[in-house]
Amino acid sequence: MGGKSGLKFVGVVEAAGESEARVRIFPEFCDAVKGVEDYSHAIILYWIHLRDNEKERSVLKVVPRRCPENVKVGVFACRSPSRPNPIGLCVVELMKIEECTLTVKGLDAFKDSPIIDIKPYIPRRDAVPNAYTPGWLSH
Amino acid sequence: MGGKSGLKFVGVVEAAGESEARVRIFPEFCDAVKGVEDYSHAIILYWIHLRDNEKERSVLKVVPRRCPENVKVGVFACRSPSRPNPIGLCVVELMKIEECTLTVKGLDAFKDSPIIDIKPYIPRRDAVPNAYTPGWLSH
Repeated sequence: MGGKSGLKFVGVVEAAGESEARVRIFPEFCDAVKGVEDYSHAIILYWIHLRDNEKERSVLKVVPRRCPENVKVGVFACRSPSRPNPIGLCVVELMKIEECTLTVKGLDAFKDSPIIDIKPYIPRRDAVPNAYTPGWLSH
Repeated sequence: MGGKSGLKFVGVVEAAGESEARVRIFPEFCDAVKGVEDYSHAIILYWIHLRDNEKERSVLKVVPRRCPENVKVGVFACRSPSRPNPIGLCVVELMKIEECTLTVKGLDAFKDSPIIDIKPYIPRRDAVPNAYTPGWLSH
């Protein structure tokens, strides 16, 4: 594979919006959704297709939007969409699931972004309320 | 791209272990690590290389390990390593960072798993302590 590996797109963001977004899972992957309705939240991994080019994927440092000091930080230290693998990650609230379509709250993906994975949110593994972050993030 | 897209491996799990693991970021991506040390936790995305074959990637339903009722659920409703895109996701505690090597706690990846992304853990976005999960998960 030589350092690259193939990703399958399992769905697509059909309607965008922080307060409500719609994610459609393709029919051939629909069986994988069974049971997602038993969780209140999920982690959605999507492909930031608009940044999938060599220029954006070569970016290793950025000035984060919220950083008042104009200091560059590594892309692994912020949520920059420009990064070696343009994977977006959002914890979303599951509002409704109808067949292969999930209506969710908190997804910051653009319309037409391919979906690459959905994982159930498990507080025991995923919730660290007291984790600390750098000061610039609170500005 | 026809539903597939290329992933770059940015590092590797050099030593495995739930209580302590070592993740080495390759020199060409090392600049992206700058600033990660200002966080207490990070989300590590890795490639479950041992499941990267068509058979494991066709699995859409599994009986989860913890499920006492032997009920099959979709792979998007559990953390099964067999899934369309074998991406592992772990919230880890950052114990030490030396140059391009991170020592972390809580990584369940095997040795030699390729790293595909590191995201800083931001409680405001990522922590949902009261999220609910199905009953079988608490067994």
